[in-house]
Amino acid sequence: MSDTIGSHPASWAGKPYREIEELATSDGSVLVVPVGSIEQHGHHLPVATDTILADAVAKAGAEHADDSVPVLLTPPVWAGYSPHHRSFGGTITREHGSLRETLEEIADAALDNGFDALLLLNGHGGNASLIDSAVSTIGVDQPDSEVLGLTYFELAEPFIDEIRESEIGGMAHAGEFETSLMLHLRPELVHDDREGTYQEEPYDRSQQDLFVGGPLSVYRPFEDYSPSGAIGDPTLATAEKGARIHDRLGDAMGDLLERIHEENR
Amino acid sequence: MSDTIGSHPASWAGKPYREIEELATSDGSVLVVPVGSIEQHGHHLPVATDTILADAVAKAGAEHADDSVPVLLTPPVWAGYSPHHRSFGGTITREHGSLRETLEEIADAALDNGFDALLLLNGHGGNASLIDSAVSTIGVDQPDSEVLGLTYFELAEPFIDEIRESEIGGMAHAGEFETSLMLHLRPELVHDDREGTYQEEPYDRSQQDLFVGGPLSVYRPFEDYSPSGAIGDPTLATAEKGARIHDRLGDAMGDLLERIHEENR
Amino acid sequence: MSDTIGSHPASWAGKPYREIEELATSDGSVLVVPVGSIEQHGHHLPVATDTILADAVAKAGAEHADDSVPVLLTPPVWAGYSPHHRSFGGTITREHGSLRETLEEIADAALDNGFDALLLLNGHGGNASLIDSAVSTIGVDQPDSEVLGLTYFELAEPFIDEIRESEIGGMAHAGEFETSLMLHLRPELVHDDREGTYQEEPYDRSQQDLFVGGPLSVYRPFEDYSPSGAIGDPTLATAEKGARIHDRLGDAMGDLLERIHEENR
Amino acid sequence: MSDTIGSHPASWAGKPYREIEELATSDGSVLVVPVGSIEQHGHHLPVATDTILADAVAKAGAEHADDSVPVLLTPPVWAGYSPHHRSFGGTITREHGSLRETLEEIADAALDNGFDALLLLNGHGGNASLIDSAVSTIGVDQPDSEVLGLTYFELAEPFIDEIRESEIGGMAHAGEFETSLMLHLRPELVHDDREGTYQEEPYDRSQQDLFVGGPLSVYRPFEDYSPSGAIGDPTLATAEKGARIHDRLGDAMGDLLERIHEENR
Amino acid sequence: MSDTIGSHPASWAGKPYREIEELATSDGSVLVVPVGSIEQHGHHLPVATDTILADAVAKAGAEHADDSVPVLLTPPVWAGYSPHHRSFGGTITREHGSLRETLEEIADAALDNGFDALLLLNGHGGNASLIDSAVSTIGVDQPDSEVLGLTYFELAEPFIDEIRESEIGGMAHAGEFETSLMLHLRPELVHDDREGTYQEEPYDRSQQDLFVGGPLSVYRPFEDYSPSGAIGDPTLATAEKGARIHDRLGDAMGDLLERIHEENR
Amino acid sequence: MSDTIGSHPASWAGKPYREIEELATSDGSVLVVPVGSIEQHGHHLPVATDTILADAVAKAGAEHADDSVPVLLTPPVWAGYSPHHRSFGGTITREHGSLRETLEEIADAALDNGFDALLLLNGHGGNASLIDSAVSTIGVDQPDSEVLGLTYFELAEPFIDEIRESEIGGMAHAGEFETSLMLHLRPELVHDDREGTYQEEPYDRSQQDLFVGGPLSVYRPFEDYSPSGAIGDPTLATAEKGARIHDRLGDAMGDLLERIHEENR
Repeated sequence: MSDTIGSHPASWAGKPYREIEELATSDGSVLVVPVGSIEQHGHHLPVATDTILADAVAKAGAEHADDSVPVLLTPPVWAGYSPHHRSFGGTITREHGSLRETLEEIADAALDNGFDALLLLNGHGGNASLIDSAVSTIGVDQPDSEVLGLTYFELAEPFIDEIRESEIGGMAHAGEFETSLMLHLRPELVHDDREGTYQEEPYDRSQQDLFVGGPLSVYRPFEDYSPSGAIGDPTLATAEKGARIHDRLGDAMGDLLERIHEENR
Repeated sequence: MSDTIGSHPASWAGKPYREIEELATSDGSVLVVPVGSIEQHGHHLPVATDTILADAVAKAGAEHADDSVPVLLTPPVWAGYSPHHRSFGGTITREHGSLRETLEEIADAALDNGFDALLLLNGHGGNASLIDSAVSTIGVDQPDSEVLGLTYFELAEPFIDEIRESEIGGMAHAGEFETSLMLHLRPELVHDDREGTYQEEPYDRSQQDLFVGGPLSVYRPFEDYSPSGAIGDPTLATAEKGARIHDRLGDAMGDLLERIHEENR
Repeated sequence: MSDTIGSHPASWAGKPYREIEELATSDGSVLVVPVGSIEQHGHHLPVATDTILADAVAKAGAEHADDSVPVLLTPPVWAGYSPHHRSFGGTITREHGSLRETLEEIADAALDNGFDALLLLNGHGGNASLIDSAVSTIGVDQPDSEVLGLTYFELAEPFIDEIRESEIGGMAHAGEFETSLMLHLRPELVHDDREGTYQEEPYDRSQQDLFVGGPLSVYRPFEDYSPSGAIGDPTLATAEKGARIHDRLGDAMGDLLERIHEENR
Repeated sequence: MSDTIGSHPASWAGKPYREIEELATSDGSVLVVPVGSIEQHGHHLPVATDTILADAVAKAGAEHADDSVPVLLTPPVWAGYSPHHRSFGGTITREHGSLRETLEEIADAALDNGFDALLLLNGHGGNASLIDSAVSTIGVDQPDSEVLGLTYFELAEPFIDEIRESEIGGMAHAGEFETSLMLHLRPELVHDDREGTYQEEPYDRSQQDLFVGGPLSVYRPFEDYSPSGAIGDPTLATAEKGARIHDRLGDAMGDLLERIHEENR
Repeated sequence: MSDTIGSHPASWAGKPYREIEELATSDGSVLVVPVGSIEQHGHHLPVATDTILADAVAKAGAEHADDSVPVLLTPPVWAGYSPHHRSFGGTITREHGSLRETLEEIADAALDNGFDALLLLNGHGGNASLIDSAVSTIGVDQPDSEVLGLTYFELAEPFIDEIRESEIGGMAHAGEFETSLMLHLRPELVHDDREGTYQEEPYDRSQQDLFVGGPLSVYRPFEDYSPSGAIGDPTLATAEKGARIHDRLGDAMGDLLERIHEENR
Repeated sequence: MSDTIGSHPASWAGKPYREIEELATSDGSVLVVPVGSIEQHGHHLPVATDTILADAVAKAGAEHADDSVPVLLTPPVWAGYSPHHRSFGGTITREHGSLRETLEEIADAALDNGFDALLLLNGHGGNASLIDSAVSTIGVDQPDSEVLGLTYFELAEPFIDEIRESEIGGMAHAGEFETSLMLHLRPELVHDDREGTYQEEPYDRSQQDLFVGGPLSVYRPFEDYSPSGAIGDPTLATAEKGARIHDRLGDAMGDLLERIHEENR
């Protein structure tokens, strides 16, 4: 899939302004802002993995949704909140407050065009509470639009057990899940040195995995978890799993866009 | 009327500074900062319900934990993030960024005394992502202390089905759960007009209840959910249920404090 | 142990929102926000002394004022501006700008309910200029309410010489005045080790005492003044003096609330 | 027309940097930063009155102080905190937080040269709490310098009753005091239309005059006090009174600079 | 050229972190951060034109530079400072201060990896002073790296007269220059309705064109200049001109990268 | 020593507020805000050189402009953005963001009086991008006034070659140009030790001189350029050149004020 800036049919970036205006003022229009990160993903995945995947799921959703849904995608916000990865190289992290402000400004200027709904589609666990917070602060400022937020891999929770081979902890940062998706979508960017590790987290009610969580929030720099930076089991990843996951995510995302469209027309 | 600021044995407020220093520098010391809100809680509950309950659970935890655990409690941060309640009267909300800054400053000055761990104990759903965010920003700035966050009612998730009578949606804002706790702890503050309502939320993967959630985050002012401001079924609340919940929460909180103490000595 | 957040009859925290609305929209309604601190008070007083006393005077005022005065009290803002105490343990200080912002946000949300007047009632000398500043910034933003500020011990200036035994300098931080009030109000929190010291301040036109001031403002960390942190003479304090001071303060505060009520109906 | 920025012998502005360095590193060196305002001063005084007077007193002090005192003056900070005058024309007010930040930045850069003490010399009542606050925030950041603040007219309090003819209230904003000083120092800028008024302030324990104050702080826009903007009695002002006040202020200021020098060598 | 995120050989986004670290610590390493905008570009060009072009020139430079130059490119910062375009649709503008902060944070985290030099490569005239400002604020904070900034079209100034057909004013926003480059690089995104206009600017010493400037800075919303949003003459644009410009820009950019590399090894 | 704040006939500072209001509401009224700096200017020039010169050119312009042009001048903003000079003594620099905010606040309060146009007249190269930025942020907030910015020495570019004797690089910081103007305007402040140096800047397309620039922006602290702090050739400066430059600048500035007046009536 060639993907130069603005080349996707649903891309805001590639259109002249009058087309954007027209789409934004259509009934039940939805704007999606993918939000990722640039942070270490072990020795085998590129640092933009979260950005690439959030962007890919946004596009897949736009493709799966019914053609009657007026949907536009901004380019991905590629620098996320990743202080816990910074001691590794290759990480470009934002400050918490100013990243939220960035999202608020983007939402403010974009929604001004008349969209009925905004979805912040996140690709990075470390952004999750920030995205929830931004949904709230944007929502307060934009009473005329529905404002939503979602971390894309949560869409896989209902079906992931059909696919996963690793135990709990294996589908964590740069593990079986993300590596499979990258092997499917961008195999040329996946390296061979798939060194991962299962994290040891003392509290049983804190996050264990992308899909197994708990209510206790703990701050821990990633060098405490893993020497390579990867957590989970990337050796179980395959392109075939990636293709299945991608297809299911596209379906779920398309359904969600249709639902948002229906609710806001 | 007697005033009890600082009267609890674990209260930071009531001690001279040298006692605080001694406790903070004890091995495996834990500081708990309860965070609540002042916001409408329907016609029957006082606006400080979330503050009262977070504070009560913190105190119950300190009482249930083994005496060997050095634990201190600050007074509760009583103004939370409640813009979605503001159209009702009685709500004192903070701005998102400045409330996070408030928590960071409290943590910075308090941890300076030498605590090994900090737990932000939250009592208000609308604060949850902010608390998670603060755990992270405080954690980055305080590499020598373990920084954790928890919304107290999550501690009830493992046992709540033994107690609840309402269906999903009944234990929401000012519903069966919070009203029961208040009937047990502060019956003189609970009024008779227990008008609640079940919310209708179009997205099936968004939050339904204090205990039944979903990954989709939606901003919605509370006047869209409920004319009285209460969501759920407060008529099912009893003091007896409140007593059982309070006791179980105290146990769970005490266990958590012991666990934190063990991990950080 | 019972917890009394919201138990005072004039307490905002303990009421359901409709009662707050009704009171706020009464003619000549007054809102009082007590502002204290958590900072070292020598070896004998608890760190929350300023918070406890500001809160107590606010309550005494509400009790002394005529029943026709519609008055509500928020919980006390318990973290003040205390960088000059920070080198001692037990101090939780806020930053200057963000504490002012905190007060502005509380005022903004609270006055939105319709109060005719707001009084920031301060208990800590180190907050005094911040409170004055907040009166001004809040006043600019709230043209429809009268905005006032007061440090409570200034109310004692007209009568304190009838009571004091110490010389100038003896009624300073944790000295004869504050210790007497605490012996009356919260004797169980007052410890025996009443080590104080008279400060030596080189400039004769700077602050000498809670009641003897001068126009020259000087910044000085408290470790330059006193090894124990207490300044003045706490050994002269008695519960009986405390009772007399408390009663006179209650009268004066009640009169002030009545005057504010009269002026703003 | 000649322009005299930097022409005073103690002026920082008029010296090459090496002279400033030499002076700043002298034993017991003192830096004075005059802070004024640009705000309406009735029909007869220019809007820069407070700036002109703070600057003049700083210069008079430098002239009266012993030659052995190493003292430098920055140019006056001419835009102060004057929101309460803004409804009148001619007022250039700053925001509270950013003016404090301005003073902090000036102090930070200036003290970096090695001064032993800093005095913020204020000329505007509306700046007074802001100056006190800045003394504190600068003091925290500059532990190696003594940081002080003073509103210049407070220096006149001990002797003003020998000179004043007006009753309490007559020496307020643009009244007998300021007008006399301006008639002495800048008579060409004083206009004939000296319309003043005595303020009516309902609270007896609030500020009545430049010299008669009280502990109660009230925010009130000046149009509530006076139709012309001037408060007090400017008709009693004379150049001869101005000369006497100026001379006494110069003496007092010189003494203070000597005292600061002595204390900090 | 296929250009999925991270697919260019010099792309930071597409590499695992250890490769980035290795490159960043090479002698004379250079990091380029392209900065563009999303703003109306008339009826014929896509809103991301400035982002697309800054990104393309950065890549062309990396390709033209000698292989010995260690250079990395971040993804483009796609939201710039465009308030003057906001009244047209399709514009996503940032606030000035927070965009500068965004660049500072990106620089801070990226330079932490050890780059010897940073170049902010700007594609939008409205960003130019902001970029210059960021060069300075980043430079102050990063004394160990050379910090530079450039608006890419300035590189064309020495040769553009060989290519341009329009008069002064014709190579302005979405005019002959930008349209030619887009016809060469992304012809599928260029629409036929090439409505442009020559701006009428009253001050002869203000900016007239991308290449003819003046020292007087004026703020003017673009609707005052042009009904379509485009200024200049896009009808003179050709893909052939675009190819020539692109090739010359690539040369100039490659030379500059080599020069920066040489100066900083 | 007489002090002349407010003594110029066009000075805002010296007028009572009603005169300012009258002038501001005149047709085609123009407000000029001079912005300078306090920063090292070698061994021979005072640190306020940029402030003195911006202020002098503003005054010369007001004198040369036709009497029918309603123009007012604020006092100069004397602390600019000079971090690159800070390692030398005598420099009082502001932070970038807060200086811009300062200018915005001054503009906001001043334009509120009704001026038709605002010109920020800058005297310091290091302020130039900040001034351009402020023109834009002020312009956005003030749609009813024309907002402009100019660095005064750019007005000399058309004629300076008639006067200059130095080669490129000789009319830089504290060189032939500024020293000549100071010898003419404030000879008593110019010292004999005129040590300058020609900077060596590796990039041929970066700034070489006040009058010879380039598009490449580089951050470099001034101690890298010159041991004395002066760049260029101050030994070629004469008072006679200064007089010619001053006269031509006054003409050009007067013409510009007339033009602004004409365009905005």
